[in-house]
Amino acid sequence: MFRRWTSIAGIGVLLLLPACARTQTESSTQSADAKAKSVILLIGDGMDDHQIAIARNYLHGASGSMSFEEMPVRGAARVLTVLETDPTVPEYVADSANSGTTLSTGVVTSRGRIATTASSDQDVETILEKAQKAGLGTGVVTTSSVTDATPATFMAHVAVRWCEGPDDMDGSRGGLLPGCPNDLVAAGGRGSIAEQLVERRVTVLLGGGLEHFEQRAENGEVLLERARSSGIRVVQSADSLAALKPGAPVLGLFGNGTLPVVWAGEGGRSAAPVKGDLEAFRCVDNPRFGDLPRLAEMTAKAIELLSFEGRGFFLLVESASIDKQAHGANPCGEIGETLQLEEAVAVAREYAAVAGDTMIVVTADHGHAGQIIPYPSLFEGLSSILGPQGSPGKVALLATPEGGRMAVSYGTNSSRLEEHTGTHVPVFAEGPGAAVLAGLVSQHEIFFAMVRALDLD
Amino acid sequence: MFRRWTSIAGIGVLLLLPACARTQTESSTQSADAKAKSVILLIGDGMDDHQIAIARNYLHGASGSMSFEEMPVRGAARVLTVLETDPTVPEYVADSANSGTTLSTGVVTSRGRIATTASSDQDVETILEKAQKAGLGTGVVTTSSVTDATPATFMAHVAVRWCEGPDDMDGSRGGLLPGCPNDLVAAGGRGSIAEQLVERRVTVLLGGGLEHFEQRAENGEVLLERARSSGIRVVQSADSLAALKPGAPVLGLFGNGTLPVVWAGEGGRSAAPVKGDLEAFRCVDNPRFGDLPRLAEMTAKAIELLSFEGRGFFLLVESASIDKQAHGANPCGEIGETLQLEEAVAVAREYAAVAGDTMIVVTADHGHAGQIIPYPSLFEGLSSILGPQGSPGKVALLATPEGGRMAVSYGTNSSRLEEHTGTHVPVFAEGPGAAVLAGLVSQHEIFFAMVRALDLD
Repeated sequence: MFRRWTSIAGIGVLLLLPACARTQTESSTQSADAKAKSVILLIGDGMDDHQIAIARNYLHGASGSMSFEEMPVRGAARVLTVLETDPTVPEYVADSANSGTTLSTGVVTSRGRIATTASSDQDVETILEKAQKAGLGTGVVTTSSVTDATPATFMAHVAVRWCEGPDDMDGSRGGLLPGCPNDLVAAGGRGSIAEQLVERRVTVLLGGGLEHFEQRAENGEVLLERARSSGIRVVQSADSLAALKPGAPVLGLFGNGTLPVVWAGEGGRSAAPVKGDLEAFRCVDNPRFGDLPRLAEMTAKAIELLSFEGRGFFLLVESASIDKQAHGANPCGEIGETLQLEEAVAVAREYAAVAGDTMIVVTADHGHAGQIIPYPSLFEGLSSILGPQGSPGKVALLATPEGGRMAVSYGTNSSRLEEHTGTHVPVFAEGPGAAVLAGLVSQHEIFFAMVRALDLD
Repeated sequence: MFRRWTSIAGIGVLLLLPACARTQTESSTQSADAKAKSVILLIGDGMDDHQIAIARNYLHGASGSMSFEEMPVRGAARVLTVLETDPTVPEYVADSANSGTTLSTGVVTSRGRIATTASSDQDVETILEKAQKAGLGTGVVTTSSVTDATPATFMAHVAVRWCEGPDDMDGSRGGLLPGCPNDLVAAGGRGSIAEQLVERRVTVLLGGGLEHFEQRAENGEVLLERARSSGIRVVQSADSLAALKPGAPVLGLFGNGTLPVVWAGEGGRSAAPVKGDLEAFRCVDNPRFGDLPRLAEMTAKAIELLSFEGRGFFLLVESASIDKQAHGANPCGEIGETLQLEEAVAVAREYAAVAGDTMIVVTADHGHAGQIIPYPSLFEGLSSILGPQGSPGKVALLATPEGGRMAVSYGTNSSRLEEHTGTHVPVFAEGPGAAVLAGLVSQHEIFFAMVRALDLD
């Protein structure tokens, strides 16, 4: 259950680099003007402070810490969102599209938008695009579809996040929002997110989302074929990924949509409406994960390929399903994907400790529903006066490896899907330029800190 | 509604001190070994990151910040709790008694305990007692009863927090937990919390809780009379408080129990189970607050009295009803009491900026229930597939002064009282020794940082 991946990661990264005693931590107090050769941004989707506390208690015990919490800079970032109908009015809860856009472009926009402005629908250049223009390597690694909101905000520009493939452009798939008629190539637009990803020629692009590339573009061409014929190397298994050597751009698609998560609740259990006494359960390996590459393996390969050329790079790594499992009120899924992020951060820090000159930022895009609550209730002794005590939402009682019982409650939506929440999110950072991210910042300041560190226009 | 108190605070504090250009902020990077003449600890009860986000959005706008968020050190503190039945087993949600005990003594204990150890019921010396022994001034200021859990953990030692006055010792009042038979004076104990507070002779002790001092001790003596006859000055109005000059110890009791809060929801509204569309409302002054002293006024008077003697001091300031209003699912109450904390911190920092040599720590004791959720739901467009969308808990839709609509949801208990939650809590600090509180710490490290800064044994 506690399968760790750092030993494998070590092989991928360290063989390419000279041994060097100087650690990243020592450079962490460099001034705001310090320059980085490379930036690695790691996003835990929906991983707010409370979701970290849930994962920490289970993975490391109440007195432990996620290893990324030991980074020298810890701050907090406001998550800003505006209304599509009136961008002067704040909205207090974000989605991954608008918060990803703030991180990728420095612009505050409305929910659902991918690197476009609220209401006026203008494309905004992303840090990945700026890095490409400056001749740096670029990488995006995620456990979701590579066309999903967070990765898309760094590589594409559409009005609505659900326009992932050509078949989505009329809005018939997502159902949540209208399609993207203005983004059709025939309308003078850039096409769907998948089409733009092929065009973007990111040095290394790894994740799920094969189904979107099996669709045909407006000219009838299947996107996967278009990618191959343009010289992009397409890989679809952990073995092919491991065998990759530096060379042409890589598109790794390891599943049709979101990749399966590494952990599940014992017996398939997640949080559920409370009926009677709760029975504690543990988290176990998710058999559906199979022989997919873990996030840390993909991260290590991305760093290996990007660092080979020696020109510096911008790399985005996302553990996407912390959010998706929180929507589904599945604490074991959440915890396992937070572990995946922790492993990926360890790989990045291992690289930075040796290579130096690397800014690492770990953060979340928005808050989420999960809360640790007392079980039984703090007011159990008063039930004769107050009536029955207990969460109105879904609750799971986890038996933690240290011998405790942790109740995780999801009480934001009585329907099947829990909601994002509107808290600020944590920021962990190290390396050149990282010091400016201590204290309270806004998400666009993370964008500006990265751009400044890489000296991009 | 936005009545600010800082101008009044300025009068109380600044007249006593020489003007001095050196600001507290400049000394914030002093090493962990730096010594402070005085320490001011300000606790927002239940004020976790999410409750701060709620208050920030309302008070300062989504892009604003609580002024204490501008302090140079921002960290996070794990809240540790153990089971009374087996103190080797962690519990993941605290109450104010056990988390207050960790802050006041450095010892991790079980819920309900006031500066006593879990299971073995041993008294543990508090930082306030250590400060007294070392000849420093001591102060406690709170908006709750001075006998309530948080203040009590700094001044008293009992097995169960509900033993606030002599009449509570048999456990008949609280109803949640047994009484404190071993703490009876007749049994060789120290008596109820109120009896111990009279005995403790804190330099300045201000808050609510008069009812507990109107009770008779085991020897038949009314506690308020015992306090007066031992030379303690008892005050019961804002005017008498303002008129106080340095001199004998002060016991200020401005209400029978918890003091009324400064804000309420327009029309008395708080969060409620959702039935149909929500109507947005604003926060307004609570008419019940009347002419009570605000927390900042009490803080300024405490600092005035404590600083007069020039021997240094330890002062605890608590905004208690952030917690109590969150239990009651009343976001306007919560926000107003967070404003009270902000005003009190401003007074403390104003003093420190002039006096220097003062360590200021602002933190919370435990997490709480309130969450900002989207309204309408992120999945509103899918109700035809997923069914009705909305929080299963209590929701209030606030019309924020900046023109937005913020939905605050409480979904931890379907009964009348919401629960504490198990997240880590934020820490803000400045002054000598404050730097060690950056990053992730545990609450007992806050205790040790304060003890070290004051050079206490």
